[in-house]
Amino acid sequence: MAWGKKIAINTGGGDAPGLNAVIEAVVMASSKLGWEVYGIKNGYGGLLNTNDIVRLTPEVVRGISNLGGTILGTTNKGNPFQMPITNLAGETEIRDVSDRVVENFKRLGFDCLIAVGGDGSLKIAYDFYKKGMPVVGVPKTIDNDLGGTVITFGFDTAVSIATEAIDRLHSTARSHDRVMVVEVMGRHAGWIALNSGLSGGADVILIPEIPFDIEKVCSHIMENELHGRHYGIVVAGEGATPVGGKELAKGTGEAGRQELLLGGIGEYVAKEIAKRTGKDTRSLVLGHLQRGGSPTTFDRLVSLRFGAAAVRMVEKQNFGIMVALDPPEVKGVPLEEVIGKIRKVPLTSDSIQTARDMGICLGD
Amino acid sequence: MAWGKKIAINTGGGDAPGLNAVIEAVVMASSKLGWEVYGIKNGYGGLLNTNDIVRLTPEVVRGISNLGGTILGTTNKGNPFQMPITNLAGETEIRDVSDRVVENFKRLGFDCLIAVGGDGSLKIAYDFYKKGMPVVGVPKTIDNDLGGTVITFGFDTAVSIATEAIDRLHSTARSHDRVMVVEVMGRHAGWIALNSGLSGGADVILIPEIPFDIEKVCSHIMENELHGRHYGIVVAGEGATPVGGKELAKGTGEAGRQELLLGGIGEYVAKEIAKRTGKDTRSLVLGHLQRGGSPTTFDRLVSLRFGAAAVRMVEKQNFGIMVALDPPEVKGVPLEEVIGKIRKVPLTSDSIQTARDMGICLGD
Amino acid sequence: MAWGKKIAINTGGGDAPGLNAVIEAVVMASSKLGWEVYGIKNGYGGLLNTNDIVRLTPEVVRGISNLGGTILGTTNKGNPFQMPITNLAGETEIRDVSDRVVENFKRLGFDCLIAVGGDGSLKIAYDFYKKGMPVVGVPKTIDNDLGGTVITFGFDTAVSIATEAIDRLHSTARSHDRVMVVEVMGRHAGWIALNSGLSGGADVILIPEIPFDIEKVCSHIMENELHGRHYGIVVAGEGATPVGGKELAKGTGEAGRQELLLGGIGEYVAKEIAKRTGKDTRSLVLGHLQRGGSPTTFDRLVSLRFGAAAVRMVEKQNFGIMVALDPPEVKGVPLEEVIGKIRKVPLTSDSIQTARDMGICLGD
Amino acid sequence: MAWGKKIAINTGGGDAPGLNAVIEAVVMASSKLGWEVYGIKNGYGGLLNTNDIVRLTPEVVRGISNLGGTILGTTNKGNPFQMPITNLAGETEIRDVSDRVVENFKRLGFDCLIAVGGDGSLKIAYDFYKKGMPVVGVPKTIDNDLGGTVITFGFDTAVSIATEAIDRLHSTARSHDRVMVVEVMGRHAGWIALNSGLSGGADVILIPEIPFDIEKVCSHIMENELHGRHYGIVVAGEGATPVGGKELAKGTGEAGRQELLLGGIGEYVAKEIAKRTGKDTRSLVLGHLQRGGSPTTFDRLVSLRFGAAAVRMVEKQNFGIMVALDPPEVKGVPLEEVIGKIRKVPLTSDSIQTARDMGICLGD
Repeated sequence: MAWGKKIAINTGGGDAPGLNAVIEAVVMASSKLGWEVYGIKNGYGGLLNTNDIVRLTPEVVRGISNLGGTILGTTNKGNPFQMPITNLAGETEIRDVSDRVVENFKRLGFDCLIAVGGDGSLKIAYDFYKKGMPVVGVPKTIDNDLGGTVITFGFDTAVSIATEAIDRLHSTARSHDRVMVVEVMGRHAGWIALNSGLSGGADVILIPEIPFDIEKVCSHIMENELHGRHYGIVVAGEGATPVGGKELAKGTGEAGRQELLLGGIGEYVAKEIAKRTGKDTRSLVLGHLQRGGSPTTFDRLVSLRFGAAAVRMVEKQNFGIMVALDPPEVKGVPLEEVIGKIRKVPLTSDSIQTARDMGICLGD
Repeated sequence: MAWGKKIAINTGGGDAPGLNAVIEAVVMASSKLGWEVYGIKNGYGGLLNTNDIVRLTPEVVRGISNLGGTILGTTNKGNPFQMPITNLAGETEIRDVSDRVVENFKRLGFDCLIAVGGDGSLKIAYDFYKKGMPVVGVPKTIDNDLGGTVITFGFDTAVSIATEAIDRLHSTARSHDRVMVVEVMGRHAGWIALNSGLSGGADVILIPEIPFDIEKVCSHIMENELHGRHYGIVVAGEGATPVGGKELAKGTGEAGRQELLLGGIGEYVAKEIAKRTGKDTRSLVLGHLQRGGSPTTFDRLVSLRFGAAAVRMVEKQNFGIMVALDPPEVKGVPLEEVIGKIRKVPLTSDSIQTARDMGICLGD
Repeated sequence: MAWGKKIAINTGGGDAPGLNAVIEAVVMASSKLGWEVYGIKNGYGGLLNTNDIVRLTPEVVRGISNLGGTILGTTNKGNPFQMPITNLAGETEIRDVSDRVVENFKRLGFDCLIAVGGDGSLKIAYDFYKKGMPVVGVPKTIDNDLGGTVITFGFDTAVSIATEAIDRLHSTARSHDRVMVVEVMGRHAGWIALNSGLSGGADVILIPEIPFDIEKVCSHIMENELHGRHYGIVVAGEGATPVGGKELAKGTGEAGRQELLLGGIGEYVAKEIAKRTGKDTRSLVLGHLQRGGSPTTFDRLVSLRFGAAAVRMVEKQNFGIMVALDPPEVKGVPLEEVIGKIRKVPLTSDSIQTARDMGICLGD
Repeated sequence: MAWGKKIAINTGGGDAPGLNAVIEAVVMASSKLGWEVYGIKNGYGGLLNTNDIVRLTPEVVRGISNLGGTILGTTNKGNPFQMPITNLAGETEIRDVSDRVVENFKRLGFDCLIAVGGDGSLKIAYDFYKKGMPVVGVPKTIDNDLGGTVITFGFDTAVSIATEAIDRLHSTARSHDRVMVVEVMGRHAGWIALNSGLSGGADVILIPEIPFDIEKVCSHIMENELHGRHYGIVVAGEGATPVGGKELAKGTGEAGRQELLLGGIGEYVAKEIAKRTGKDTRSLVLGHLQRGGSPTTFDRLVSLRFGAAAVRMVEKQNFGIMVALDPPEVKGVPLEEVIGKIRKVPLTSDSIQTARDMGICLGD
């Protein structure tokens, strides 16, 4: 084999369950081909400070697939193309240190970089690709909002954790005749809210794609009383907004606006429901619980397949691409086609239709 | 609305996590259209003995999605087309009582039947369709081996339970330098073994689609010793067979043949590994643990979507079909096209490729 | 049997995993003795409005042990001794309706009441006992702060959920070199924080029993850096306070005081750590997640034992008492001895000692 | 500090969830005192072959508490007092190599040994103590049958796993009107069967302490039919036996005896129930699933407390003892008093009483 001896791999952006499974698959598949793999710690940090590079052998990675987080760390101290540098006088300026990254990459004899990350990290990877670095991207997102792939890892785990939390809240909501509002992740797209709301049996699901009318939400909850259901579960994606946007929320007065802007959408919705219906109402933000811990089987499998596919792309010298699931196959799609494309929930999607069919209120 | 007032629904064959979610979605979606739903208990039992029919309202089904099993029962006392009938003298004969089923169906004023079940149950549903009963099928399988749909419910839960079991066995296998053989479900197709073996980090995965060479299995396990891994995990689908079939296993002597035939493939493999390598080896059959309990989020979602889609098919008077996932859509496929088609793991599938890339032994 | 035919049971206060297991055991054990059991819904509501009484038979309760919440509801619309009553003019006054409760109790022919609840509910039960109602109490608390019993149900589940959450946060904290502050329940006593902090591997555990010095907390977190641990986990019971009490927190300025009073102790601690150490720090409030969902095996067992023991107390006509665990036995202790006694974590307890031995910072 | 610099620790016998938590606590607590800790791998193997000794620092052990198994391995290649030695000619003889263990222990400068293990391992530890080695034992058992301590780690996890399995089997048993027999661990004592059977809602619980009458078991299951419960769950500890012992099982004919001796008690009971009642009956052996995987919160806490207490015993030079839980304290009990004492379930215990009160059949 004349080519492909030394692979670099890094993980960037927020951690997601499955990152370690990608790493394990990349190392195992490379090892089978007789290649070496090196982990770049803390995003691109290890290519600026070479102390932060670690040799990854099968012995090191066997069995890490079921661990949450990433053994390589993912703290982005910053984008190498716009790196904040602080001098001794304490002044910070933004500098482009990408040349040093490329230089170190070459001096260390790496043949390519497998960059695992979300939209921001893949954008940086693409910029390095344009500077001549052979790059294969692996998409990672809790929110499921990346373009170019039907699904990626991290999402199924996040939905599962949210669903389990909603399951738990049912018993307490029912015992106390209470409305519980759960705020889940999803700043730009409502995938987590929609899927966990459906499988968790929510009464109301609020997603960024559908501005909600708080009065309709309240009516829906009150109608439940007629059917002997004296409690309610509302699942709200963090990016959900009232009809007319956050500005309109001013209509609820200064206090309402403050809550909406400061307390998060969950707290805003809870307070409005309590005020308008008189029902005992509480809110809860799942936050970081959704991204930690062991990946589900589904996510492990996607991660392993993506890792192995990335190595096959390297073998075929197919660079500047991102691996993507196009069921049942994993293929490569050009990075330039997918970067910056947020994949929202289509309003005509089957899951939206299912929610409407089942009489779940989507706020409109 | 002139049509569609009374829907019958039944569940047949082995229970699978997600059956109750299908029922919940069917009832909720029908209720929204102003229709009534009745549950036929114990397969077609309720159409032979009308005591076994139960009215299903939203009040009854709200929240059952996360319960395992089926509230309708699934005991098939037999196929109505070939029903064993025992007379007072204790003699049993096979009779076709399907006319009585159709008659009762009509007398009770049902407009259609939503039949949820595996290949056997769908075949019966199709036979009733040919006798003039308006039928919509919903595919159910733990084993993921039904034709016509990319995936269905029950499978993700089964794989998750198997993976969790394999995770647990790692710690005990490692602590004792032991080989653990886990037999999972999959008589005809290796989907559960392949997916749980991959995500559980197995060393060897044996599936019905690839006859295995026990010597290659043993070599693979011994080679691990060179890499400081003194234990091993083997995942075997229950339908896995040695090269040359079960007959060839005779070559291992009468005792070996007995083990293979009586003790199951897991026990056979464990005994062969112990005998040939001298390693401490144990086997475990997961069995019924794989089908019980609360469905995963993934399975709940598929089930709810299938249930809602089945009601849409009824609304469109689209009968003689089975709902099926053709991502991202749910569509109807003619029952006659899918019945009796077992969907095996394609040897060229991406998951098989991933396993090979990662150096996992598939027995060949 | 001349005595004991009709038992009433109610559940009061916040819901806790295990309430349904108590109910199941009470009904099963009573049924074996040939007694009848009736559930009083919504605390004492069913003794004011007799529509809210439900017959509980073995058929109804078999298998509810693993369900969270309580099938009887636990909304206390108020203490019957101080019930807020609103007249048609919208004016509310406090009235003592306890005589009506006792009257209805007698007219309905109940022989005794098994009252399951926390300190507040047991106090009411004791007041009814003093008015001549035969009462057996069953202690319930998530917080583990009830006097008179070594442990009760709900606590093990709450600690397990908190520990699982902390486990998840480790991976994200480590991946991002971040400090995560988790606020868990425990207004008066630090049992949940202490046990979940220990078993979840926290760096710092803050409990109400030990006022904390925020500077010591920060020093402890920074010292971790010297050992290559660049992240930290802080578990804070909601009742934890800085040295000198909340008043002293004013010293941190108006903003600090506001955070402490409004945002909860977790947010306060997180902001102080971020400000003082410069570490990326986040906080999370577990809240209601800790009380919902299926009880752990441990809690189910305690609940079942308490339920069965309550029936034995009734059989012996041993009233005015609360069942209590005095390992390995369950015995009865007089209600008057335990009411109003909050059981704090003793500073000399073995778990505190274990935390100190292991070098965990307790804030002092 | 003039004493106590070098602590050795080993783990012996079958693995149990919590072993790693003991190790973590021992290392953290020793480190705080300025002591060093060394792990002896594979039981006493590392004191025969010094390659198998590993330095344990806080950096190595932080966070291992939630991992199953033991990082030190637990393969007992044999008791050093009766070690099977194979010479080049392939002949095996039993030799006492305990002097070499003691010698190496001294030469390596160890001050004491913390031996974590079950009854067999603690017996060996005690024998070394009698040879002058300063030893502190830490009790470990899945089965909960060790004398001298109210409880130890491993048991709560095993019961939880068994209960979760039983929960799952309910849904499939109910859906199919089937009897499921689950065989759980417990050769000498029925703790796991009793506790998991109670919390899992079993109809019948069979334990070694109470010889069972299979006819009474069958009657109990049939009586359920009268109450509309057409399925059954039987939990059998592996050491359960029919009245009269295994010999009497001969009365069921040669086939029955074979099943009892070869197939395990679960299979025997299942076949007898099927034969006698005609009910569809299946059996399942949980086996190794019960000992693997992450420990419950309860077990982690006991393990951490035991580990820290063991270090306190070393500090006080209190040797020849085993740490033990005497709630709420952890104390030391002399090894000689506890070795060889199997702690059976007392027939008068509160849990047995609870089972009887609730109408659960115990086979007598």
